[in-house]
Amino acid sequence: MAKLKLRYGAISTDDHIQESPDLWTDRMSAAAFGEAIPHVIEQDDGSQTWLINGELFPRLAMVPAAMPNRRIEPLRWEDVPKATYVPGDRLKAMDHDSVDTHAFFPNIAGLTGGTFTNRGTEDWREACIRAYNDWLIDVWAEYSPRFIAQCIAPMWDVDKAVAEVRRSAKRGHKALVWHGALSNLDLPHFNDAYWDPLYATCQELDLPMALHIGAAGMLATWDGYAPYTAKALGSAAAIASNTQILANLLYSGVPERFPKLNFISVESGIGWIPYLLETLDHEYEVLECWKDGMSRKPSEYFHRQVYANFWYEHVGIEIRRHVGVDRILWETDYPHTTSTYPNSKTMRESCLAGVPGDERRAMLVDNSVRLFKLDIEE
Amino acid sequence: MAKLKLRYGAISTDDHIQESPDLWTDRMSAAAFGEAIPHVIEQDDGSQTWLINGELFPRLAMVPAAMPNRRIEPLRWEDVPKATYVPGDRLKAMDHDSVDTHAFFPNIAGLTGGTFTNRGTEDWREACIRAYNDWLIDVWAEYSPRFIAQCIAPMWDVDKAVAEVRRSAKRGHKALVWHGALSNLDLPHFNDAYWDPLYATCQELDLPMALHIGAAGMLATWDGYAPYTAKALGSAAAIASNTQILANLLYSGVPERFPKLNFISVESGIGWIPYLLETLDHEYEVLECWKDGMSRKPSEYFHRQVYANFWYEHVGIEIRRHVGVDRILWETDYPHTTSTYPNSKTMRESCLAGVPGDERRAMLVDNSVRLFKLDIEE
Repeated sequence: MAKLKLRYGAISTDDHIQESPDLWTDRMSAAAFGEAIPHVIEQDDGSQTWLINGELFPRLAMVPAAMPNRRIEPLRWEDVPKATYVPGDRLKAMDHDSVDTHAFFPNIAGLTGGTFTNRGTEDWREACIRAYNDWLIDVWAEYSPRFIAQCIAPMWDVDKAVAEVRRSAKRGHKALVWHGALSNLDLPHFNDAYWDPLYATCQELDLPMALHIGAAGMLATWDGYAPYTAKALGSAAAIASNTQILANLLYSGVPERFPKLNFISVESGIGWIPYLLETLDHEYEVLECWKDGMSRKPSEYFHRQVYANFWYEHVGIEIRRHVGVDRILWETDYPHTTSTYPNSKTMRESCLAGVPGDERRAMLVDNSVRLFKLDIEE
Repeated sequence: MAKLKLRYGAISTDDHIQESPDLWTDRMSAAAFGEAIPHVIEQDDGSQTWLINGELFPRLAMVPAAMPNRRIEPLRWEDVPKATYVPGDRLKAMDHDSVDTHAFFPNIAGLTGGTFTNRGTEDWREACIRAYNDWLIDVWAEYSPRFIAQCIAPMWDVDKAVAEVRRSAKRGHKALVWHGALSNLDLPHFNDAYWDPLYATCQELDLPMALHIGAAGMLATWDGYAPYTAKALGSAAAIASNTQILANLLYSGVPERFPKLNFISVESGIGWIPYLLETLDHEYEVLECWKDGMSRKPSEYFHRQVYANFWYEHVGIEIRRHVGVDRILWETDYPHTTSTYPNSKTMRESCLAGVPGDERRAMLVDNSVRLFKLDIEE
């Protein structure tokens, strides 16, 4: 595969792919799965949406930052900006935004990769997941090293997850998109030894587990808010909800059992991390958790095994030494609401004003290169 | 009432009262309520617990920091430390911890005052709430100005809440303990105009609304954790969950409609606040929420109307100018797990090392004196 040639010195580690209407229809057997294959249908009101195993999906696309205005949602496929689902157009958008890479998380397949977990037959689920993972390699990663593929995997069966992760890593995926609160899906909890074969595999392959926001519960009801205020609130609340995921991760015993396994807290920002680490360590001290077999303070596991990314934070960067300059990645979240597109360069320069060159380089480039094992040239 | 004479220069704004077995039995009509009155009963295993309107309460007391060791829970009333429920003993514990005041939140009546909301008849609920509020004045606030009483109020009926708040404020209560996510209790949402008479009353009386952690949803399942690790995690996750409550508050429109109403984010720490404000403001900008009628950025409402307290944070104090030195209070959370008791002085001095005297004074004394309208002498 070609080397990644850096032009902007800015590796984004959290962006979303808009799955195209032919993704699954082109890669799944019509004879085996027929109408159950995820595809786009017409609705009576003239709009289109996805039909997934006979269930209507709540939206056709999630691409607000690529639209002329973030308040407009595309209702038909012809209104979905090509930059969200066509590689050549995507590269142009990335150049327009002065960004070297996009690292892909799903839209339709679920922000944490869980859309296929509780639907359909097991064969259907596996075929949907494999098609998504293959599409990211065949259509995207092979098109350009500027696209960072991250696989999804079965969540209902650890052996199947292990097999798909091995297959995907071999094909070129750089991380596993995983769900940080599986017990919310009636699956074994994050800390359960049931998952150890998957943790062992990711550790062996040096494949980080990317824990995108959206897994933890949030305050449920926003009745009576104007729609975009509700959206702003939902977005901010989701970002803050990874505090729950990370608290759980750092007490779970998993970093103790798998000391070389890396995790990424994705789209959660960084400014809350010193606070959370102080809180976790304080509770560890007052409750003497070392007596329960945690040999280290929660913050020590964080500084050894966890990464997180920023995109708009000034205070977060100001307190970077408490997060760890070696723990921080950068992202644009294109094409979601919160994205800094098309002003990612201006925003990142504003956040990084006054930061020494080596620290800046670590957060924008070196940490990601190391974590994803990117093959770069400059 | 006597003036509060400061000896330690440290006003704690979040502590818990352990309700005593005679609190409700002494103050509610046996003829009217009989066995429904909250009281302590014997259990078959030799332990005791509360029976509240015929329902067993999950614990007798929540007093770990007052116990010889935080891992021991008292199973009988004679094992509950007197300092948690007897005024004279409490003052000694406060002196031992070099703390001028304790501001009371409930234990049995609910961390956010909601134990009586969904149980029993309306008459019973009101009698329970009035008894609690009267006890805090008659037994505690009248005993010493070092006890800061904070009332609870009916949550199922705004007119009753207004009446109880007026009665309590007149009796000497300094704040209202309120629930930040009422829709979780199937009540109108925080932003609903239904609550406006209560907001108007608190604003008129200059009575802050204290939003203690415990109202927002958290990650639900901690299966398989050792018990004290589960407790440490639950505690840390609860502390972090007020990010949800504050996000909601600052987008709710309530601070817009009631510009002189004050709120306290209680037991949530302070180090996450700059992060949350940056996040809320960022979402406000990208979604152009001013078009929805929010005339100011979320951070502006915070800096005008919200307070939060610290007890163990060093980074939180380091970034205090981003929180606002005029927004920060201090607490000990005695006698709960996370409490700094009996080392509150050592911990606060450690957190405040190098902080100029006027800022230190604002956070430990002046902000609380202003907010609770305390009558002090030095």
